[in-house]
Amino acid sequence: MVKYNRELDATFQALADPTRRAIVAALSRGQASVTELAEPFEMSMPAVSKHLKVLERAGLIARGRAAQWRPCRLEAGPLRNAADWLEHYRQFWEQSFDRLNDYVSELQSKESGDGRED
Amino acid sequence: MVKYNRELDATFQALADPTRRAIVAALSRGQASVTELAEPFEMSMPAVSKHLKVLERAGLIARGRAAQWRPCRLEAGPLRNAADWLEHYRQFWEQSFDRLNDYVSELQSKESGDGRED
Repeated sequence: MVKYNRELDATFQALADPTRRAIVAALSRGQASVTELAEPFEMSMPAVSKHLKVLERAGLIARGRAAQWRPCRLEAGPLRNAADWLEHYRQFWEQSFDRLNDYVSELQSKESGDGRED
Repeated sequence: MVKYNRELDATFQALADPTRRAIVAALSRGQASVTELAEPFEMSMPAVSKHLKVLERAGLIARGRAAQWRPCRLEAGPLRNAADWLEHYRQFWEQSFDRLNDYVSELQSKESGDGRED
Protein backbone atom coordinates (compact mmCIF):
# COMPACT_ATOMS: atom_id res chain seq x y z
CA MET A 1 0.00 0.00 0.00
CA VAL A 2 3.01 2.23 0.54
CA LYS A 3 4.27 3.69 -2.73
CA TYR A 4 8.03 3.54 -2.70
CA ASN A 5 9.66 6.64 -4.04
CA ARG A 6 13.33 6.34 -3.25
CA GLU A 7 14.06 9.68 -4.88
CA LEU A 8 11.78 11.48 -2.41
CA ASP A 9 13.33 9.49 0.47
CA ALA A 10 16.80 10.63 -0.59
CA THR A 11 15.72 14.24 -1.22
CA PHE A 12 14.06 14.72 2.16
CA GLN A 13 16.93 12.89 3.88
CA ALA A 14 19.46 15.19 2.20
CA LEU A 15 17.46 18.30 3.15
CA ALA A 16 17.22 17.24 6.82
CA ASP A 17 20.56 18.90 7.60
CA PRO A 18 21.16 22.66 7.98
CA THR A 19 24.59 22.60 6.30
CA ARG A 20 23.22 20.77 3.28
CA ARG A 21 20.28 23.21 3.05
CA ALA A 22 22.81 26.07 3.20
CA ILE A 23 24.81 24.45 0.36
CA VAL A 24 21.59 24.23 -1.70
CA ALA A 25 20.96 27.92 -0.96
CA ALA A 26 24.52 28.84 -2.01
CA LEU A 27 24.32 26.83 -5.25
CA SER A 28 20.96 28.35 -6.17
CA ARG A 29 22.94 31.57 -6.71
CA GLY A 30 25.35 29.86 -9.16
CA GLN A 31 27.83 27.00 -9.42
CA ALA A 32 30.76 26.88 -7.00
CA SER A 33 33.84 24.82 -6.21
CA VAL A 34 34.15 22.74 -3.04
CA THR A 35 36.65 25.31 -1.68
CA GLU A 36 34.21 28.16 -2.30
CA LEU A 37 31.41 26.19 -0.66
CA ALA A 38 33.54 25.24 2.37
CA GLU A 39 34.57 28.83 3.13
CA PRO A 40 31.47 30.25 4.88
CA PHE A 41 30.83 27.07 6.88
CA GLU A 42 34.04 27.07 8.94
CA MET A 43 34.15 23.38 8.19
CA SER A 44 36.91 21.02 7.04
CA MET A 45 37.01 20.12 3.34
CA PRO A 46 36.35 16.41 4.09
CA ALA A 47 33.27 17.38 6.13
CA VAL A 48 31.94 19.52 3.26
CA SER A 49 32.79 16.78 0.74
CA LYS A 50 30.76 14.32 2.79
CA HIS A 51 27.71 16.61 2.66
CA LEU A 52 28.23 17.11 -1.09
CA LYS A 53 28.26 13.33 -1.60
CA VAL A 54 24.88 13.02 0.17
CA LEU A 55 23.47 15.81 -2.03
CA GLU A 56 24.98 14.22 -5.16
CA ARG A 57 23.58 10.76 -4.37
CA ALA A 58 20.15 12.39 -3.92
CA GLY A 59 20.52 13.99 -7.36
CA LEU A 60 20.26 17.46 -5.84
CA ILE A 61 23.63 18.51 -7.17
CA ALA A 62 25.85 17.50 -10.07
CA ARG A 63 29.58 18.08 -10.47
CA GLY A 64 31.42 19.19 -13.58
CA ARG A 65 33.82 16.59 -14.94
CA ALA A 66 35.84 18.56 -17.48
CA ALA A 67 37.16 21.46 -15.44
CA GLN A 68 40.02 21.01 -12.98
CA TRP A 69 37.95 22.57 -10.18
CA ARG A 70 34.89 20.32 -10.79
CA PRO A 71 32.27 22.95 -9.95
CA CYS A 72 29.08 21.87 -8.18
CA ARG A 73 25.74 22.95 -9.55
CA LEU A 74 22.21 22.57 -8.23
CA GLU A 75 19.84 20.23 -10.06
CA ALA A 76 16.24 21.37 -10.12
CA GLY A 77 14.28 18.10 -10.52
CA PRO A 78 14.40 16.66 -6.98
CA LEU A 79 13.59 20.03 -5.37
CA ARG A 80 10.58 20.40 -7.67
CA ASN A 81 9.39 16.86 -6.87
CA ALA A 82 9.66 17.50 -3.12
CA ALA A 83 7.73 20.77 -3.53
CA ASP A 84 5.10 18.96 -5.64
CA TRP A 85 4.66 16.35 -2.91
CA LEU A 86 4.16 19.04 -0.24
CA GLU A 87 1.85 21.01 -2.55
CA HIS A 88 -0.77 18.24 -2.18
CA TYR A 89 -1.16 19.36 1.43
CA ARG A 90 -1.52 23.07 0.73
CA GLN A 91 -5.31 22.80 0.92
CA PHE A 92 -4.93 21.04 4.27
CA TRP A 93 -2.78 23.71 5.90
CA GLU A 94 -4.75 26.58 4.35
CA GLN A 95 -7.94 25.13 5.83
CA SER A 96 -6.20 24.72 9.20
CA PHE A 97 -5.16 28.37 9.21
CA ASP A 98 -8.66 29.43 8.13
CA ARG A 99 -10.05 27.51 11.10
CA LEU A 100 -7.50 29.13 13.42
CA ASN A 101 -8.38 32.55 12.02
CA ASP A 102 -12.09 31.91 12.57
CA TYR A 103 -11.34 30.85 16.15
CA VAL A 104 -9.24 33.98 16.82
CA SER A 105 -11.99 36.19 15.33
CA GLU A 106 -14.52 34.44 17.55
CA LEU A 107 -12.35 35.02 20.65
CA GLN A 108 -11.84 38.68 19.68
CA SER A 109 -15.54 39.32 19.18
CA LYS A 110 -16.27 37.65 22.56
CA GLU A 111 -13.61 39.84 24.20
CA SER A 112 -14.98 43.06 22.70
CA GLY A 113 -18.43 41.85 23.79
CA ASP A 114 -17.15 41.48 27.38
CA GLY A 115 -15.63 44.96 27.10
CA ARG A 116 -19.06 46.48 26.41
CA GLU A 117 -20.54 44.71 29.42
CA ASP A 118 -18.03 46.34 31.84
CA MET B 1 26.85 31.03 8.82
CA VAL B 2 24.54 28.02 8.89
CA LYS B 3 21.13 28.94 10.24
CA TYR B 4 19.96 26.17 12.52
CA ASN B 5 16.35 25.32 12.11
CA ARG B 6 15.78 22.16 14.06
CA GLU B 7 12.11 22.09 13.11
CA LEU B 8 12.99 21.85 9.41
CA ASP B 9 15.61 19.17 10.20
CA ALA B 10 12.97 17.11 11.98
CA THR B 11 10.30 17.71 9.32
CA PHE B 12 12.49 16.63 6.38
CA GLN B 13 13.85 13.71 8.42
CA ALA B 14 10.31 12.55 9.21
CA LEU B 15 9.24 12.87 5.55
CA ALA B 16 12.25 10.83 4.31
CA ASP B 17 10.33 7.58 4.79
CA PRO B 18 7.57 6.25 2.50
CA THR B 19 5.46 4.82 5.36
CA ARG B 20 5.55 8.12 7.22
CA ARG B 21 4.59 10.02 4.04
CA ALA B 22 1.70 7.56 3.56
CA ILE B 23 0.58 8.21 7.17
CA VAL B 24 0.65 11.97 6.45
CA ALA B 25 -1.44 11.33 3.31
CA ALA B 26 -3.95 9.22 5.29
CA LEU B 27 -4.27 11.81 8.07
CA SER B 28 -4.78 14.64 5.58
CA ARG B 29 -8.15 12.97 4.89
CA GLY B 30 -9.13 13.09 8.60
CA GLN B 31 -8.01 11.92 12.01
CA ALA B 32 -7.53 8.19 12.62
CA SER B 33 -6.61 5.75 15.37
CA VAL B 34 -3.34 3.80 15.36
CA THR B 35 -5.30 0.64 14.47
CA GLU B 36 -6.94 2.37 11.50
CA LEU B 37 -3.56 3.69 10.36
CA ALA B 38 -1.83 0.31 10.73
CA GLU B 39 -4.41 -1.57 8.61
CA PRO B 40 -3.37 -0.62 5.05
CA PHE B 41 0.37 -0.92 5.77
CA GLU B 42 0.46 -4.65 6.63
CA MET B 43 2.70 -3.62 9.46
CA SER B 44 2.81 -4.51 13.17
CA MET B 45 1.31 -2.02 15.61
CA PRO B 46 4.72 -1.38 17.27
CA ALA B 47 6.24 -0.59 13.85
CA VAL B 48 3.45 1.90 13.09
CA SER B 49 3.74 3.37 16.60
CA LYS B 50 7.44 3.95 16.03
CA HIS B 51 6.71 5.90 12.84
CA LEU B 52 3.99 7.89 14.63
CA LYS B 53 6.47 8.83 17.37
CA VAL B 54 8.89 10.23 14.74
CA LEU B 55 6.03 12.24 13.18
CA GLU B 56 4.86 13.41 16.62
CA ARG B 57 8.36 14.54 17.68
CA ALA B 58 8.59 16.49 14.40
CA GLY B 59 5.29 18.20 15.25
CA LEU B 60 3.69 16.80 12.09
CA ILE B 61 0.98 14.99 14.03
CA ALA B 62 -0.71 15.42 17.37
CA ARG B 63 -2.63 12.83 19.35
CA GLY B 64 -5.89 13.27 21.22
CA ARG B 65 -5.58 12.81 24.97
CA ALA B 66 -9.19 12.65 26.11
CA ALA B 67 -10.60 9.86 23.96
CA GLN B 68 -9.81 6.23 24.72
CA TRP B 69 -8.63 5.66 21.12
CA ARG B 70 -6.26 8.68 21.12
CA PRO B 71 -6.85 9.66 17.48
CA CYS B 72 -3.93 11.06 15.47
CA ARG B 73 -4.39 14.23 13.51
CA LEU B 74 -2.14 16.04 11.07
CA GLU B 75 -0.66 19.40 12.11
CA ALA B 76 -0.31 21.90 9.30
CA GLY B 77 2.54 24.17 10.49
CA PRO B 78 5.63 22.02 9.77
CA LEU B 79 4.35 21.00 6.31
CA ARG B 80 3.77 24.65 5.47
CA ASN B 81 7.26 25.62 6.69
CA ALA B 82 8.88 22.86 4.59
CA ALA B 83 6.88 23.99 1.54
CA ASP B 84 7.89 27.62 2.23
CA TRP B 85 11.56 26.61 2.34
CA LEU B 86 11.28 24.78 -1.00
CA GLU B 87 9.27 27.65 -2.50
CA HIS B 88 12.44 29.81 -2.40
CA TYR B 89 13.84 27.55 -5.11
CA ARG B 90 10.82 27.66 -7.41
CA GLN B 91 12.42 30.38 -9.50
CA PHE B 92 15.53 28.24 -9.77
CA TRP B 93 13.78 25.13 -11.09
CA GLU B 94 11.44 27.11 -13.32
CA GLN B 95 14.47 28.76 -14.94
CA SER B 96 16.13 25.34 -15.31
CA PHE B 97 13.11 24.00 -17.14
CA ASP B 98 12.91 27.12 -19.30
CA ARG B 99 16.56 26.56 -20.28
CA LEU B 100 15.86 22.88 -21.02
CA ASN B 101 12.84 23.90 -23.12
CA ASP B 102 14.94 26.42 -25.06
CA TYR B 103 17.55 23.73 -25.66
CA VAL B 104 14.95 21.22 -26.90
CA SER B 105 13.43 23.88 -29.21
CA GLU B 106 16.91 24.63 -30.55
CA LEU B 107 17.56 20.91 -31.23
CA GLN B 108 14.16 20.58 -32.91
CA SER B 109 14.72 23.59 -35.19
CA LYS B 110 18.19 22.24 -36.12
CA GLU B 111 16.63 18.84 -36.90
CA SER B 112 13.91 20.32 -39.12
CA GLY B 113 16.64 22.41 -40.80
CA ASP B 114 18.60 19.21 -41.55
CA GLY B 115 15.41 17.70 -42.96
CA ARG B 116 15.11 20.48 -45.54
CA GLU B 117 18.72 20.01 -46.64
CA ASP B 118 18.17 16.31 -47.54
